[in-house]
Amino acid sequence: MPTIAERLAALTAAITYADLSDAAVHWAKVAILDTVGCTLAGANEECARIADRITTLGGSTGDSLIFGSDRRVRPMDAALINGTASHALDYDDCSDTLGGHPSAPILPALFALAETRPTSGRDFLAAYVAGWELETRIARGVNFHHYEKGWHPTATLGVFGSAAACAHLLGLNSQQITTALALAATFSSGIKSNFGTMTKPLHVGHAARNGLQAALLAAEGFTASADVFEHKQGFLNVFNGAGHFDVDRMFAERSEPWDIVSPGVAIKQYPCCGSTHPAIDALLMLVREHRFAPEQVDRVDSWTHPRRLNHTNRPDPQSELDAKFSVQYCIARGIVSGRVSIEHFEGTSYQDADVQSVLQRVHAAPHPNMSMDTFEHFGAEVRVTLTDGRVLTQSVTRPLGRGPTHPLPEELLIAKFMNCAMRAIPEDAATHTLGMLRGLESANSVRSLTNAMVTRSALAA
Amino acid sequence: MPTIAERLAALTAAITYADLSDAAVHWAKVAILDTVGCTLAGANEECARIADRITTLGGSTGDSLIFGSDRRVRPMDAALINGTASHALDYDDCSDTLGGHPSAPILPALFALAETRPTSGRDFLAAYVAGWELETRIARGVNFHHYEKGWHPTATLGVFGSAAACAHLLGLNSQQITTALALAATFSSGIKSNFGTMTKPLHVGHAARNGLQAALLAAEGFTASADVFEHKQGFLNVFNGAGHFDVDRMFAERSEPWDIVSPGVAIKQYPCCGSTHPAIDALLMLVREHRFAPEQVDRVDSWTHPRRLNHTNRPDPQSELDAKFSVQYCIARGIVSGRVSIEHFEGTSYQDADVQSVLQRVHAAPHPNMSMDTFEHFGAEVRVTLTDGRVLTQSVTRPLGRGPTHPLPEELLIAKFMNCAMRAIPEDAATHTLGMLRGLESANSVRSLTNAMVTRSALAA
Repeated sequence: MPTIAERLAALTAAITYADLSDAAVHWAKVAILDTVGCTLAGANEECARIADRITTLGGSTGDSLIFGSDRRVRPMDAALINGTASHALDYDDCSDTLGGHPSAPILPALFALAETRPTSGRDFLAAYVAGWELETRIARGVNFHHYEKGWHPTATLGVFGSAAACAHLLGLNSQQITTALALAATFSSGIKSNFGTMTKPLHVGHAARNGLQAALLAAEGFTASADVFEHKQGFLNVFNGAGHFDVDRMFAERSEPWDIVSPGVAIKQYPCCGSTHPAIDALLMLVREHRFAPEQVDRVDSWTHPRRLNHTNRPDPQSELDAKFSVQYCIARGIVSGRVSIEHFEGTSYQDADVQSVLQRVHAAPHPNMSMDTFEHFGAEVRVTLTDGRVLTQSVTRPLGRGPTHPLPEELLIAKFMNCAMRAIPEDAATHTLGMLRGLESANSVRSLTNAMVTRSALAA
Repeated sequence: MPTIAERLAALTAAITYADLSDAAVHWAKVAILDTVGCTLAGANEECARIADRITTLGGSTGDSLIFGSDRRVRPMDAALINGTASHALDYDDCSDTLGGHPSAPILPALFALAETRPTSGRDFLAAYVAGWELETRIARGVNFHHYEKGWHPTATLGVFGSAAACAHLLGLNSQQITTALALAATFSSGIKSNFGTMTKPLHVGHAARNGLQAALLAAEGFTASADVFEHKQGFLNVFNGAGHFDVDRMFAERSEPWDIVSPGVAIKQYPCCGSTHPAIDALLMLVREHRFAPEQVDRVDSWTHPRRLNHTNRPDPQSELDAKFSVQYCIARGIVSGRVSIEHFEGTSYQDADVQSVLQRVHAAPHPNMSMDTFEHFGAEVRVTLTDGRVLTQSVTRPLGRGPTHPLPEELLIAKFMNCAMRAIPEDAATHTLGMLRGLESANSVRSLTNAMVTRSALAA
């Protein structure tokens, strides 16, 4: 009778690129594109810069690129630094299964490892999907008790995703993958009391690094216990506790076998609280359709779900963080700038005079027809009254990007990527990287992809 | 009202060498000497060798010695490798407060860090004691529920000890130490289901490394939550759970303020199951006093506590591991070799003909006067009947080394050190290192101490 780790390892080992459905490849590419963008966007954040200084203390040289720079370092160092950067802005993709961010703990480790050995785009895609499926499979067995208790699943479960993805790329057999998962269980860490500090994104870098470490140790013949999940002092009992997990759910058959397809990838379109997103979507649909100017706006009314308005009803934000949680600011910003981007939550951007002027005309209220006893709480309705008397209204039931049934249009995905990438690299490098990522399944070498991120001047130096 | 982390940090920051009692300095030196020996003994074990290959993958250069070699690497790498080596043989010191091994997670990090900066022996001793006191203070608040639930305290609490010791050596202020402790909480990991594999000692290396990482990050201005212990999703609630910890016990006044003095350091005299130790002690006292030869022995009777005999009654061991748990083998080995050392549990040593011959004359039984309803279960009585008719008997109530009230005589501590150290370094280097460690409080530089461990030929190269 195989153990849980052995069953998970066998499923991981069996995944090949040829088995992936077209939809799985599509969504994997979307998530990878988005995560590379977010990692570049976070590369210069303070948390990533400190993680870099500490991690490379004493020097580090190797094949693995620190995103947003031209420095190549040892793979575990790159995994930690890029992993921290990937989640620095909390702008990276989400998974409803994980209750967290599925790609940020996997991809920095996988890129760092892939650059140390010949790796095709297809090898990379298969390993990435193997990591995603493994971490969400464990999540189905432990969530949401795991999440609600105070563990940070992006880290505590992400480390398994990183280990599985790296083990897959290394071509480990089932027994070695079992060991890698047992090591990941022993490295699993990260508690939510550190949310709201630099330590939250560091959790992700730490998980990415440790997942890679687990795979490398397993490849070298390290030993760990195959019954690490079900053991009375194993992962399930120690982290969740008896009665708070369901192993059958991990292995249950589902109509859509790939979790990355359904429930799938949720892409964050705006770098602010997700509860503001549906109202921003509705507003920007009106802006794009009717192309009105800020001075034409007489009044805006926004109605969102009361559960979501509760923490986003901030008519007069007093800080950058406040602005991220103000639905009124986000709407005013959308009217003024025609988009809502990272720079709108930096410095004193929220104090811009033209935005402050519009802000006074924005009114937010709970939507009268949205009940508290539903999980469909991602709707919004926005009404813009123009000075010429026209009244424009728009409703959305879910924000764009929030799952494959509400996909982000490709041009918006690309716009987000370029906005993110150009915070760290020049436009030509960003464009080049974008092109490589869009053709990832045809790439002969992941190294050529990361080379694209390095500016020409830096490459020449 | 300061948080728990802030209170712990203030206590850590306040410790100076001048405040240490003579007893605290004495026991700190004993524990450091013993841990350096155990680390050298474990340096060539497979777990440490693999940890080295993985950790230095891509190259590592720096100031921090890999014990047992002449290679100096980056401090976090050395902490992980030496930390794994220190616990590889499970021969390192113990703490009844911790329910684990107090020094192994601290010292490898502290040595690695001390070598990167001018550090006197007194700086080192004060930082080490600060780490010990901090980790045992937390242990008083969470044990033994923490231990029994399945956490590995040497790792999950040791990471705090490492962080505090490194923070102290770096001279961080209370606020920075608070951050280091909050980071340690987020890195804390290690579950007991991986016991019995190479992963157990790796837990220690991982904790040592991560504690150092926490201190370095805090020194650079990283941020983490000061309420990381008491937060509803903080360390105490997530790791132990409501009702399973006692904060008052952490801060309670005690008649002996230094935990390292009382309950204090327990030194393992023999590299085998602790339940065999009292019988070995009694036997070796007889051997040393009466100097009889193996062929003079007609019969040996050993009586130990039934709780301890239960898993050590193995009259005919069939493997190295079996031999470690065989009180009969340990007694026979003591008669033949006059001591019980690491090499006696390696390879086919347990099959040596002279030992097998004596083994047939060794009889073990539960002691008739030792009751199951006591915690004083570390006693033994040994009776040796010689061929000339003499009957020699010896009782012990506690094995030597098991706490400061039963201290290991200095010559035995030194013998253990030399036996351990010479597994990795030549005798002259071991002797030189021993001398440095015995005068640690007078050392101007920890670097000169680690230099002593490197052989002359290696230094010349």
